[in-house]
Amino acid sequence: MSRPVSIFGIAGSLRAKSYNRAALRACGDLLPEGATLDAYMLPDLPGFNEEREKEPPAEIVDMKKRIRAADAVLFVTPEYNLSMPGVLKNAIDWASRPYGDNAWAGKPGAIMSASMGSAGGVRAQYHLRQCFVFLDVKLVNAPEVAIPAAHKAFDADGKLVNEMSRKFIAQLLENLVAWTRKLRGD
Amino acid sequence: MSRPVSIFGIAGSLRAKSYNRAALRACGDLLPEGATLDAYMLPDLPGFNEEREKEPPAEIVDMKKRIRAADAVLFVTPEYNLSMPGVLKNAIDWASRPYGDNAWAGKPGAIMSASMGSAGGVRAQYHLRQCFVFLDVKLVNAPEVAIPAAHKAFDADGKLVNEMSRKFIAQLLENLVAWTRKLRGD
Amino acid sequence: MSRPVSIFGIAGSLRAKSYNRAALRACGDLLPEGATLDAYMLPDLPGFNEEREKEPPAEIVDMKKRIRAADAVLFVTPEYNLSMPGVLKNAIDWASRPYGDNAWAGKPGAIMSASMGSAGGVRAQYHLRQCFVFLDVKLVNAPEVAIPAAHKAFDADGKLVNEMSRKFIAQLLENLVAWTRKLRGD
Amino acid sequence: MSRPVSIFGIAGSLRAKSYNRAALRACGDLLPEGATLDAYMLPDLPGFNEEREKEPPAEIVDMKKRIRAADAVLFVTPEYNLSMPGVLKNAIDWASRPYGDNAWAGKPGAIMSASMGSAGGVRAQYHLRQCFVFLDVKLVNAPEVAIPAAHKAFDADGKLVNEMSRKFIAQLLENLVAWTRKLRGD
Repeated sequence: MSRPVSIFGIAGSLRAKSYNRAALRACGDLLPEGATLDAYMLPDLPGFNEEREKEPPAEIVDMKKRIRAADAVLFVTPEYNLSMPGVLKNAIDWASRPYGDNAWAGKPGAIMSASMGSAGGVRAQYHLRQCFVFLDVKLVNAPEVAIPAAHKAFDADGKLVNEMSRKFIAQLLENLVAWTRKLRGD
Repeated sequence: MSRPVSIFGIAGSLRAKSYNRAALRACGDLLPEGATLDAYMLPDLPGFNEEREKEPPAEIVDMKKRIRAADAVLFVTPEYNLSMPGVLKNAIDWASRPYGDNAWAGKPGAIMSASMGSAGGVRAQYHLRQCFVFLDVKLVNAPEVAIPAAHKAFDADGKLVNEMSRKFIAQLLENLVAWTRKLRGD
Repeated sequence: MSRPVSIFGIAGSLRAKSYNRAALRACGDLLPEGATLDAYMLPDLPGFNEEREKEPPAEIVDMKKRIRAADAVLFVTPEYNLSMPGVLKNAIDWASRPYGDNAWAGKPGAIMSASMGSAGGVRAQYHLRQCFVFLDVKLVNAPEVAIPAAHKAFDADGKLVNEMSRKFIAQLLENLVAWTRKLRGD
Repeated sequence: MSRPVSIFGIAGSLRAKSYNRAALRACGDLLPEGATLDAYMLPDLPGFNEEREKEPPAEIVDMKKRIRAADAVLFVTPEYNLSMPGVLKNAIDWASRPYGDNAWAGKPGAIMSASMGSAGGVRAQYHLRQCFVFLDVKLVNAPEVAIPAAHKAFDADGKLVNEMSRKFIAQLLENLVAWTRKLRGD
């Protein structure tokens, strides 16, 4: 029997009805067996300030604890101005500091995105990937999950109804779990 | 006689003794004749939330007013995790919204960076450039000002003492002012 | 009466029936008044080699002459492996050398792409944009023309039949011509 | 006893005295025990053309055979115009085609760069990384080896004499070999 895999998932939006928050929730239904998801609903964190990094606000301490407790990390990102949202990058920055206390270090990870445009947020994904080289997140390469026309992919209750997107997400999660097991030598 | 050019400058750090804030201040001494600088010291803004974009906090209203009042914009960015800081991207996101009310639209602009590493923050510059395609900032191409070994380039009082960096910044500002004049047809 | 604007256009594919070559040809029909297009059909150039840059092959000399004769430049790029094709980058590299003899320098420019995927090749566009900062091509920001599902956008004879794509291309060309006129002070 | 690890290494330059070719040769001396290097000296390949992909030139067949024979891949890249050289991207494109016959697929890999500038070619590295997401190369994250001031780092015979660069390369190769072993479950 294989050991369970726990995933810390974060969506890069503060909006309650965000498509990316809805996509993160959808992941909870699409997990492979043996996997669990801690879906972190990003609050309005203070801006990262190096002066405060050694005694960070309680919500940062909590976020880092949840990241550390997970076997793998999952990023669900909107695309703002052809890149990742400032609020998501800010959360990533906080969790990476202070020097020597990077909570992301060594985690297996995966990225997905949703947007109303036809490219589905892909431009944001590659900026995130660049950050994770430095942060030493070991990212799954495929599939590239970018949900286009998000206003049609979700219903009024925020349920992901696009079948193709559901299949791609399920595949990405399966790959993330298999990758996590490979990296820890299960 | 040529018309004056006013520049809105923003440094991507909340830290009081930030090298990038110091570099922004140095710009004030290195302006070509006829140019002025509104050096915006980025406060700890709330995270951008689309739910609030139509009635943004007072500090966002103020920031957008100052951007709009300027003829050109200048970004002085640290590199956090191989990209721009979340706090800077968040300020850019706020000022770009709501749809149809993008304060950056059409402005001539320039980017520079400082970091303690040998690459001087260049990786952050190209992520910012990608954002500004969408935001329609018309960026100066050269020179690429990236101050390496920032801990040596500034003295204990935050004064930029590296002569080469001072020359490059002066050239960048001169190019930004000439570019602004060309684009408005002076 | 306004002075004419000549455009050097290059498509990043060697394939005779390439969608991007077809898109470049379509540009010839969609030019605004007063503009002309020199549609360069990229041949199989040798690989750039610094040892040969001072006495380049005749086809490089010819290509650079045609670039220099133009008022503006236009790039029509496929996306190969999430970036620009090697053959296009190689042509760009040749035309940029030797040092001090960069044929692209100072030209106004525009980028468009076509691909069979839903993102239409956008990932290639931003890699090209990064190159052109160094090469000092002054790129138009909008619209972002990325023709998705290219196998449906063109008919069997290579004619662009997707009306929306035709409109976007016409707008991009109009913006490029207006931008060229602004930069030269018409 | 651990099984050997064979590495296919490619330098992105055609120039005989290229710093990046010299850096690739230096790798041969800096390998950890149990590793071997097939240092491929990139010839002047024809430009990739989809029309020829099913019956590629003999030199492409040979290159793909050598890639396939290796356990891991190593890229040593110059930076041309803020990105990877066209000649290197062209070799990558050839080896990735036709569809379903991508020679890079699934290989563990690493990237390094050398340049005369102070940033050591890092801008080229991140463009390559984006390509390898699609190509499913599983890249080592650290250390980032970018040899700055390459004209001083190598002696007249092309020997890498900068001690810090030698150490970083040795570390990168050690990490690549360990990563390869982990991924194949040694």
